[in-house]
Amino acid sequence: MFADRLTEKIKEKNNPSVIGLDPVLDRIPQYLKVKSFEEFGLSMQGAAEAIYLFNKALIDVLYDIIPAVKPQIAFYELYGEYGYNALKRTIAYSKEKGLLVICDGKRNDIGNTASAYSDAYLGETRINGSCIRAFDADALTVNPYMGSDSIKPFIDDCIKYGKGIFVLVKTSNKSSGDIQDLITQDGRRIYEVAASHVYQWGRELTGKSGYSSIGSVVGATYPEQGRILRTIMKDSYILVPGYGAQGGSAEDAAVFFNDDGKGAVVNASRSVLYAYLAAEYEGKFNNEGFCEASRLEAIKMRDELNQAIERKG
Amino acid sequence: MFADRLTEKIKEKNNPSVIGLDPVLDRIPQYLKVKSFEEFGLSMQGAAEAIYLFNKALIDVLYDIIPAVKPQIAFYELYGEYGYNALKRTIAYSKEKGLLVICDGKRNDIGNTASAYSDAYLGETRINGSCIRAFDADALTVNPYMGSDSIKPFIDDCIKYGKGIFVLVKTSNKSSGDIQDLITQDGRRIYEVAASHVYQWGRELTGKSGYSSIGSVVGATYPEQGRILRTIMKDSYILVPGYGAQGGSAEDAAVFFNDDGKGAVVNASRSVLYAYLAAEYEGKFNNEGFCEASRLEAIKMRDELNQAIERKG
Repeated sequence: MFADRLTEKIKEKNNPSVIGLDPVLDRIPQYLKVKSFEEFGLSMQGAAEAIYLFNKALIDVLYDIIPAVKPQIAFYELYGEYGYNALKRTIAYSKEKGLLVICDGKRNDIGNTASAYSDAYLGETRINGSCIRAFDADALTVNPYMGSDSIKPFIDDCIKYGKGIFVLVKTSNKSSGDIQDLITQDGRRIYEVAASHVYQWGRELTGKSGYSSIGSVVGATYPEQGRILRTIMKDSYILVPGYGAQGGSAEDAAVFFNDDGKGAVVNASRSVLYAYLAAEYEGKFNNEGFCEASRLEAIKMRDELNQAIERKG
Repeated sequence: MFADRLTEKIKEKNNPSVIGLDPVLDRIPQYLKVKSFEEFGLSMQGAAEAIYLFNKALIDVLYDIIPAVKPQIAFYELYGEYGYNALKRTIAYSKEKGLLVICDGKRNDIGNTASAYSDAYLGETRINGSCIRAFDADALTVNPYMGSDSIKPFIDDCIKYGKGIFVLVKTSNKSSGDIQDLITQDGRRIYEVAASHVYQWGRELTGKSGYSSIGSVVGATYPEQGRILRTIMKDSYILVPGYGAQGGSAEDAAVFFNDDGKGAVVNASRSVLYAYLAAEYEGKFNNEGFCEASRLEAIKMRDELNQAIERKG
């Protein structure tokens, strides 16, 4: 049961945050690129190796303080098949270090096609009777625009394999309201309708923790909406992007937690990954030590979040 | 300009249909699997090779009668990095044979992440100053749930690289109404709102053909809605899935065309790909000749569509 495993991990690390592994080549330390390009050339393979080494260095310095990582698949797809190899190795290495892995792919399609996406990330690929796991993540983000039957294959795999999904409800970007904020004739916003679906879908998947493996995504940049959505989806884990670089504060993020101090995980990517480039840390670490800045930033985030949740509670 | 290239190809082949390359291992002829598994083992690589050989055989027998193919990315992702290698080779081979390639990935994310998806399929991957094309498709399907700023990076690449997108508006599946059919307070369905966005987004991208490179997806299973959507998005290419195996008829599909007989492409996947397994063709072809059944089925579809469009016009 994914929700229970996530709850346990958060408790163990005393940290309700997740670090987004969104590697951007231009911001990766030079020494990692030199090494990778020397071995594999100035190529897709070389770039993919650099992003894997970057991730590995980050995981090594973060695994004892965070419960989970969230690789953003787009940043791997950019390097074609080699990027997907880097993604697979990143997932495997994260799990080896005891981290949960939430793949951020926002996948969705009609039934039999959604099954293929689900099998790739949450289930198994069947090849003439033998079963192989393509990516074997713990959870995947999915898009609800196509409705219930497009989500069902993912839910089935959550039950069968003890995995989780996070359904987009209210996303962190500026234009998210174009569709999500529209008001229906019965007076509900589209994001509230999506939230009701999430609540319904999660009813079969509530664990001992009291939380469901059918989570949701609500941006830290929309705390007002977060308050309302928290009440509609009481037992859904809310994955909260938009903290840090996107502008969401610890106070904004605290809104998404229940009064028990649980029920949400807050994501930061750029502010932690590229901390070594920030004015605050600049010149304080040598090349190889870049990830020490990430560790300090991740600890700061953990402490700020815990304090904000406590102040609120 | 993608819309002009598509219009040209449709005219050249006198065929407004596109074949979905959705390879499902269990339904691929045995001889292709034996060959692939002998070379690469009963593995992800072996399976990916089988689906590539399957696609190649189909392309060889279809390229002179169809304008475009539509690989459904989920069926490649199922085989991890090897699946993406098969996808890349399928795209390259299709283009070599003069076909347009619409990748069906239903991708979407916030701005900078959407850029990465767009670069992967429509644009270029920049590696320390050199530019490499990861998949280099002609067009990509995208999901509008996250709003305008999540679509903009794709539109920018359509302009820069002469590519196209197809935005999900009303999808072919049974539950598509869960969100898409909701009525807003000003009396519009969500799919009509999405269609208005598509119309607006396409205004900068209308070609000599009179059609825009910002297309849309509307299922053949919803002809009534198709009629309305056709009037909202006059100059948008409508990609129409749901024909054949999903239940849409040629008459249903004809609704999506403008009075000039243009402006839509109708997709069929299973009914063409696995024609050799259908009662109609069973036992008529030897193993290696399986794709002759696909050719007959594709010709039948072309003729039925053209007749239905003519009857309607």
